[in-house]
Formats: sequence, structure tokens, C-alpha cells
Amino acid sequence: MRDFQAILNDIHSNIIKTKDKGVVASYIPELAHVDKNNFGIHLRTADGNHYGVGHFNKPFSIQSISKVLALAKAISFKGNDVWKRVDVEPSGNPFNHLSLLELENGIPRNPLINAGALVIADILISHLKNPKEDFLNFVRDLAGDPSISYNEQVAQSEKATGFKNYAAANLLKSFKNLENSVDDVLDFYFHQCSIEMSCSQLSKAFYLFVNKGKCLMDKAHLTESQAKRVNAVMLTCGFYDEAGEFAFEVGLPGKSGVGGGIAALLPNHFVITTWSPGLNRKGNSQLGMKALEQFTSKTKLSIF
Amino acid sequence: MRDFQAILNDIHSNIIKTKDKGVVASYIPELAHVDKNNFGIHLRTADGNHYGVGHFNKPFSIQSISKVLALAKAISFKGNDVWKRVDVEPSGNPFNHLSLLELENGIPRNPLINAGALVIADILISHLKNPKEDFLNFVRDLAGDPSISYNEQVAQSEKATGFKNYAAANLLKSFKNLENSVDDVLDFYFHQCSIEMSCSQLSKAFYLFVNKGKCLMDKAHLTESQAKRVNAVMLTCGFYDEAGEFAFEVGLPGKSGVGGGIAALLPNHFVITTWSPGLNRKGNSQLGMKALEQFTSKTKLSIF
Amino acid sequence: MRDFQAILNDIHSNIIKTKDKGVVASYIPELAHVDKNNFGIHLRTADGNHYGVGHFNKPFSIQSISKVLALAKAISFKGNDVWKRVDVEPSGNPFNHLSLLELENGIPRNPLINAGALVIADILISHLKNPKEDFLNFVRDLAGDPSISYNEQVAQSEKATGFKNYAAANLLKSFKNLENSVDDVLDFYFHQCSIEMSCSQLSKAFYLFVNKGKCLMDKAHLTESQAKRVNAVMLTCGFYDEAGEFAFEVGLPGKSGVGGGIAALLPNHFVITTWSPGLNRKGNSQLGMKALEQFTSKTKLSIF
Amino acid sequence: MRDFQAILNDIHSNIIKTKDKGVVASYIPELAHVDKNNFGIHLRTADGNHYGVGHFNKPFSIQSISKVLALAKAISFKGNDVWKRVDVEPSGNPFNHLSLLELENGIPRNPLINAGALVIADILISHLKNPKEDFLNFVRDLAGDPSISYNEQVAQSEKATGFKNYAAANLLKSFKNLENSVDDVLDFYFHQCSIEMSCSQLSKAFYLFVNKGKCLMDKAHLTESQAKRVNAVMLTCGFYDEAGEFAFEVGLPGKSGVGGGIAALLPNHFVITTWSPGLNRKGNSQLGMKALEQFTSKTKLSIF
Repeated sequence: MRDFQAILNDIHSNIIKTKDKGVVASYIPELAHVDKNNFGIHLRTADGNHYGVGHFNKPFSIQSISKVLALAKAISFKGNDVWKRVDVEPSGNPFNHLSLLELENGIPRNPLINAGALVIADILISHLKNPKEDFLNFVRDLAGDPSISYNEQVAQSEKATGFKNYAAANLLKSFKNLENSVDDVLDFYFHQCSIEMSCSQLSKAFYLFVNKGKCLMDKAHLTESQAKRVNAVMLTCGFYDEAGEFAFEVGLPGKSGVGGGIAALLPNHFVITTWSPGLNRKGNSQLGMKALEQFTSKTKLSIF
Repeated sequence: MRDFQAILNDIHSNIIKTKDKGVVASYIPELAHVDKNNFGIHLRTADGNHYGVGHFNKPFSIQSISKVLALAKAISFKGNDVWKRVDVEPSGNPFNHLSLLELENGIPRNPLINAGALVIADILISHLKNPKEDFLNFVRDLAGDPSISYNEQVAQSEKATGFKNYAAANLLKSFKNLENSVDDVLDFYFHQCSIEMSCSQLSKAFYLFVNKGKCLMDKAHLTESQAKRVNAVMLTCGFYDEAGEFAFEVGLPGKSGVGGGIAALLPNHFVITTWSPGLNRKGNSQLGMKALEQFTSKTKLSIF
Repeated sequence: MRDFQAILNDIHSNIIKTKDKGVVASYIPELAHVDKNNFGIHLRTADGNHYGVGHFNKPFSIQSISKVLALAKAISFKGNDVWKRVDVEPSGNPFNHLSLLELENGIPRNPLINAGALVIADILISHLKNPKEDFLNFVRDLAGDPSISYNEQVAQSEKATGFKNYAAANLLKSFKNLENSVDDVLDFYFHQCSIEMSCSQLSKAFYLFVNKGKCLMDKAHLTESQAKRVNAVMLTCGFYDEAGEFAFEVGLPGKSGVGGGIAALLPNHFVITTWSPGLNRKGNSQLGMKALEQFTSKTKLSIF
Repeated sequence: MRDFQAILNDIHSNIIKTKDKGVVASYIPELAHVDKNNFGIHLRTADGNHYGVGHFNKPFSIQSISKVLALAKAISFKGNDVWKRVDVEPSGNPFNHLSLLELENGIPRNPLINAGALVIADILISHLKNPKEDFLNFVRDLAGDPSISYNEQVAQSEKATGFKNYAAANLLKSFKNLENSVDDVLDFYFHQCSIEMSCSQLSKAFYLFVNKGKCLMDKAHLTESQAKRVNAVMLTCGFYDEAGEFAFEVGLPGKSGVGGGIAALLPNHFVITTWSPGLNRKGNSQLGMKALEQFTSKTKLSIF
């Protein structure tokens, strides 16, 4: 049997020695001021074990990682109807390009690019009674941790500077692919992205994708088939225009966020999460990707 | 000497017989309810004569035609500095595509597409004391007619439905190519487009482009060189992705608006304006283009 | 234990009843004349069993499926150097679009779109002594069947009509991403695509991707890591701009061809191949995709 | 009356002092070896006068300038039917981009980009008995100079390196917008571009566009309306993605070539030609554009 703790320790000691740690996101002060020496990695296996090294208990801004949780919630409400309003194809373009959205008449390429996540946010607003409160509770339930919260300051900073997201939401609205107002959708979206979680909390929250749709409390949020499909979307679309690279180098479904977090998983086996705030040129955590590559190389555990 | 009145009469009688009058813009009720049997044509020559047939004294929504007047005003303030924030190349794309704006880092292709006109509006807001009031007075002065006004209802309807313009303004803002707030820029822009003028009023207002930058009152708003360059921009960019077609078929600098108006001109010779609310597939007045093509064919008066 | 033969029988009886069988490729007569009532499905498991129904022993034109075998051979020569000349990202565009190739300076998005496959063909020509003969022998060895051959008539028809491939090869050459002449590369490529194999032969040939790089004769053509990466490329790029859809609905790495074949696989478990000549709008076998979707639904065997 | 000789002398002395002369085209040795200190300017007026300074009698490779003469010849055969196979809109893209051609189903944006010129070449091949010989004679007749010739070495060099043109021609062929073989079209096209002429010869050859379609020998090659339309196409499309800039700065219909030549004209007034081999970033003669800008500024003679 593999000694996962030893493997994580080994990766940790390699990674923290790396000089080029990437560049911390600087578009809002709350992200810009995060210390790029933070590095955490955490593993939770299907048999109930968990392992961590470094800052795996320190909360960070999960940002786009939240898109997967929002997608899961939207599917739990609408099932396959979600896919009438958003496609499942990789975008082949950086995450903020609006070109494809225009060409394709307001149907975002997938739910993990910003435009697609705005459509998912719109669905949640339409179905949740108190959208922000209810979504936060959903995440807290998945992670089994009521202390998880929005970072209101992050949400406000995003709102004050998120002109590209306003552009995307208005474009979606012009194609009638938003039911709610642009302002309501963006308020929800910026809050969703502002959630702060640690690696260990994320490992719990993503457990349903390992476990055929059932969370740690054994509640079925998704059917087995739905969970598989979310995994497929993560694999093909989870890393912006570096999705192919992540599949190629790491070989796990996963999702990154601009706060430097990554959540990845091997169905039926484990969730693995990393946090390192420095990003590479494509906006994904530079050392996080490296750590995961080392993990799947060392363990030979990947979907391929 | 040409008998212009006879020529206009002839064109008028041809045009009103045309069965396919195009499709009236329907995105706001104020435009949708305009009768597409309206047709006016008006000519004002450099020697002071003027000629009209049909509904040439009936005001209509000038919409994008206002972009040329706004550009002239912006140039009068900033001279060549205008061209640091907007280019002079034809877009080769429909008027509302945001793709190029993204590819070209927030520098609109030219000041006559919507994104470019928003940058021009931003310049005017920064330079005018009471932007909306002052701009309206500028137009009134050019046309020598204080009765010209904004149509507040049109401006409000545009604001309520203009999601693509909101998208464009937010995208410009994300590239730091707007100094003022998105809301202020759009409020100004929607008002500017809501101005109502008749063909005969437009013929007066556009006279400065015939007359080396001097308006009918002989006031020099632009230098001769500046006026020529505005004419060049109209020729290459005045008809969205049909600019080549208009140059090819008509051969005059001009600008169309979604309200069905067209203002065109032969430098040193005349302004000619038409109004017919039905649009062709590319969003230009179908019968207006036809009327102007007949005019330059009959008179052989074009820049080519 | 699953009764695979019963499952295949069941799928077969469902599929042959389907009325909409898609549209057979018509750009060359050799494909156009294939009967669209052909349907075969074949499964070969890692434990040495195999199962088939329908026309699983009838050879068909493997077309783009050959790209995966060519890629494997190129990697066996050049290792990671292959990736200097071709990327691993999904294209997000139909298979024959040259736009991205221009934008990205002659580096094809991945080795499974035509432009990328031409680069792979170029690598093989540079490394094989008798390129066409040697590549055919490689395929014969993988499948353990010396009767596999090029269809010379298909190759000649492709050559006579393959203007888009000539365009792509010339564009690659203009970016200096072909070492050999355009004509030599295309001659090799058209032959490679003209290979005829049955489902059962394909199941054998693709076995190395199930088996960590070792073929049925236990010869290591690729390292385990290389085999995994080819699988990753198949998953993200194997179905043109429907790769996301295939991952989503089927959840297996695979590759389709315009002759109506599909080869897919679950690493360490099985290869499954289908043949149904009718294509869907995106150019993938309509019933083949449906059959594979039924297989992974029924068996719950997918990478996700 | 203007003293044109003095004006040209003045421009010449300004221009030759300019330090940044641009970059000579280097893709074939015949162009790469041209001395960038060459500079000629020549003017031919409608009243029969002509003026020149510098190397205005030294032949150079006219390259893309030939596209206008080929277009005129094609229109003389096919009239408006030419426009069924090529559009008249500015491309808004660099001259060699194939993207638009794909998006627009093989109809080139205009006859002055390479793809459009290939369609025009195809028309000429279909209509001329001895295409290369007859086209050369047409140019010789226009210029009244039988010494004008193809540079066979240039044509062969273009053929050996013109992979992007081969790509474009194959793409056109794939859309069935070439009647003749790709090789025949390119052979004609590369020869057409290899014609060598001096500024003074070009001034004569372009005279028909000044003179309502009639050449210097008073032969009507085009109708007045056709000549105007060629002028319109030159204005909107003659300078690749710098057409707007040329209209804006110079204000004359014209066409540049990669050999450093420019032919421009004011209808009914004059042809003006320049030659300076150094190109700017967009591929147009850097000093030629500057010289023409000075000419229209000094004389105030432009279409605007």
C-alpha cells in the first residue's frame, strides 16, 4: 500500500524549494497581498483517510473553484436542462474572451468559463429562496463546516473592478440567456467566488464527485451519472486554455481558481487539493499544477 | 447645369414604388412603430441652394448619424489625441461585435462603430461642462435650429435594452479606455443617439464637412485637414460592414443610422440626406442607399 | 461479473433499429458508396477476452483513427520533442479550420486535428526508412495481422480532392513546421488515412493504450507515462469540436474517423470499437457514439 | 497654378533625409537585395503634363500593384459578374490571413487581398487565350511601353517560397471558387506580381482610372462607372489593414506593393506614383506613404 503521507511530504519539500513560484493575482488588493510562500496540499481518500502538509488548513479565496459546486447545485435543480443554456465543449480560448459568446449566440462554451458560470449563477438565483445564504449553506453542508463564509471585502472589490464580468453578463442578457438582472447575477457570482476555504475543507466539499454524487454525509446531491458528467466537464474545461495540458500532465478532473487553489480527484479513489497563490501565464496555480503532476507520476494514480 | 429638383423628384418617384422597403428596427418600441412608407430626400449645395422631396422636413431618430457630429466635437477639443484612443480602420465586422475590441486591447477599430463612439462620448463628457446640454446646443448651432431635441423616451428605451452597449462600455472600461463611469458614458451616448432631426436639418448640420470645417454660420469648428479626415473615416467606416459596398455603389462619405437616416456629402459640393426607416440585412436604410446610388449614377457626382 | 456479450447484443439490437443513422461522408466516392446499414461493435478486455456483434470483422476506412497510431509511433521516436511542434489543447473548432493555425504561428492545437496530424506525418517521414511501408508494418504488428493494407484508390481520391489538407500543409510549411515537402507529407498522410481495418483488428491495435504502452505481443512501444498521455490527448481532442460531448456522454478516451469508425478504451480494462458509416453534424459516427454511450451507461465503466 | 515640379522636388529632398526608411522585404532574394536608398516619385496630370524626381525611371517589382490592373482586365471581361466570386469589403485583417476566407465560405473579402487576387487570376486564365502573354501585353498597352516584362527569376522565387499563397489557393479550390488548377492560377499570379515597371510607367498604366476608364491611347477599357468602382475598391482595400490610415492621411485611392511601390490617383486630375523599397510594419512603403501624405497636404488635392 502506498504511504500517502510520505508522498505528500516529499512533494512538499520539492515544491517549497522551487524558486519560480509564479505571479500572484493583482487585480484586487485582497488577492495581491497574499504571501506567495503559502503552500498546502491535502488528500482525502474514499476509504476515509486524509493526509496534509504545509498550509492545508489555512483558508484562501476559492474563486473559480466555486464554479464546480455551483454547477452541481444547478444540476440538482434542473438536471439536463442546464445544458440547454450552456454547452460542454472546451473553449480553446482564455477564460475571459467574449468572442465565442458572440459567435455562438450567447450560449457559453461550458459552465466553467466565466460566461458559463454566470448562466449557472442565474439558474441558482431563480431556484434558491435566499440565493446567497442558501448557496453558502450548501457549501457548508458539503464540507461539514459552518464556519465557511463569504469574504465580503473580496466580493466588493470584484464588483468594483470586474468590468469584464459585467461585459459578459450584459452580453448574455442581450442574448436573453439571463433571467435575472445583470446586477443580481453579478452580486451572486462575486459572492460565490469570494468564498474562503482551506485545502482540507475543499477536499471534503469535492468528495461527492469521488463518491458517485453522494457527499460525506452520504446525501445524494447528484446521481452517479450526473457526478460523472461533472467530472468530465472538469477534465475538459477546468483549466481555461490549459485544460489539455492539465489532462496531459496530471490526468485528473479538476478545477483551479485565481486565488491559487486547485481541487482535483480520481473517481472512486480520492480528492486532492493544493494551494499556492502564484499563477502561471495561463492563470493556473504554478506550483499547484507541479505538485499534482508529481503526485500522479509518483503514484501512477490517474484516470488514464 | 443640373436640375437637381428634377433629379430628386425622379428618384423619389422611383423609390416610393419599390415594394421591398426593408425591415424597420424593432428593438425599441419608439423605432418599431415608425411607418416604413416615410421617405424623404434633401440636398444642400455649397452655393447655397437646397432641394427636397417627400418627408424631408419630418424629424426622425438620427441614431448613429450622431456619431459623426460627436466625433467632430471631440476633434475640436483634442485634435489628433483622439486617435490615441480609437483607430481609423474599417472593422470588417458587424457593428456590435466585441471580438476585435478584445483582440486589440480595448482600442476600438474606428469612432463610428459603437465601441468607438463610446470612447468619443467619454471624451466629450470629460471636456463639456454640461455634457448633454452642451452637445445638444452644438448640434442646434450647426443646424441653426434651436428646436432640435433629445427624445427622452427613446433614450430611456435604449438604456433599458442596450445590453450590448453596456457590454462594450464595460469591456472598454476593463481596458482602461473610459475615463468616466460606464453609466455616465452610456447615459450620454443613448441621449446623443436619441436626437431627432429632419433631412433638411441634417443637411445643414453636416455642411461643415463639405465646407472645410466651417459651418453654415462660417464658424470654423474643424481645420480643413480635420474635416477631410472625418470624411475619410466616414467613407471607410460609415456603414458598418457594408462600408465597402457604399463606397462602391454610391461613392460618397456618409453615415447611416438605425432610424433609417443617411447623411452623405461630396466635399466642396453638397450634402445629401435621406430617410427611409426600413433597413437592409446589414442595418443600413435599404431605400436610402438605393436613392443615393441613383443620385450619384444620374449626376455622376462622386468622389471617385 | 458482467456478461459483455449480452450487453453488446443488447446494444446491437437497439442500434440497428434506429432510424436516423446520420449521413455517410460523400466527399470521395469510395466513402460515399458504403452502405449505412453496416454496424459492428467489438470489445477486447485486458484479461484476454473478446466479444463482437454485427459487422465487427468487416474492414472499413479507418481515416482519422490512424492519427492515434501515427502519434504513438512519432512519440516512440521523438519522445517529448513531439510537443515542441504540436500542442495538446482542444481546438474548440471544427477539424478543418485554419484560423487557429495562423493565429498560433503554425503550431497546431493538437495532433488529432488535421494540421497536427500532418506535423506527425512529417516526423514519421523524417524517421522511417521507407515511410509508407514501415508505418503499415507497424500497424500490422500492433494488430498481429499482415493482411491489413492501404486502400490505394481511397488515397488517390483523397489526394485529388483534399484541397483543405493541401492548404493546411502549405500553411504549416510557411511557418516552417514541416521538414519534408508538402507533397511527400500529404502522400504519406492520405495513405495513412486510407488504411482499412475491421473493429476486431482495431481493438487489437489499440490494445497498447490499455496496456501501459505494451502491445498484445508485450512489446513496449510507449512508456506507461507516454501511453497515459496519448489517452489524455484522445480524451480532450479525439472528437473534433465534439470532444467535450464525447467525454460527457461516454467518458472514455477515443478517436473517431470519417469512415464511421470509433476506437475507445478504458485504461487497464478494455478497448471497444464501433463502426457505423453514418455521421452526425460534427463528423463523428452517429450510431457509434450512441452505442458507446449505451455501453458506458449499462456497465458504468468509464474513466469518470 | 501649382508648381508641381517644385512640390515634388521639395518632397524628394525631405524624404531622402529621413533616417528610418523601413525594412526591405526579405522573403525572396530578388527583393531582399534592393537598395533601400532608392526613392522616386512621379506625377502625371490629366492635362498631359508629367513630373518626376529621383529614381522615377528605374524599374522595380510592382508586386501587388498588379492586382488593380488584373482586376480592371477581369471586369472588362465579366463586368459585375466578378462580384459574385469576390466581395468589396475591407478585410480588417493582415493581407495573408485565411481566417475570414474560411468563415465566409471561400468568398474573399475583396480583390486586392491575396485570396481575392487569386480569384481574379483564375478569371483571367479562363478568359485569356495565352494568359501570361496576353496579360503582359495588356499592361504594355496601358503603359504604351513594350519593354515591360515579367521577371522570371522573381516569379520562380515566389513559387518556391509562396506557401501561404498555395494555402490560399487550395482553400479557394476547396470552396470551388477556382475554375482552373491551383498550379495554373499560382503560376499566373506569381508572374503577374513579378512585372517590373518604373514610377513613370505605372503613372501611364494607371491613367485609365483617372480618365473614366479610358487609357492614354483613349481606348475605353472600362466604363466610367466601372472605373469609379475600381477607385472605390482601391480606397477601401488598397493598403491591407492600413487602408483606413491611407485614406485618412493621404486621401487618395491607391495600391501598394511589397516591392515598395505605390500608385495613387485623384480621379479626373492625376496619377501619382512612388517607389521606396523599405516597408513599414503593415507591409506598405514607409517613405512612399509619407511622400504622398506630404503631397496631398501641400497641394490640398485629395478626394476628401
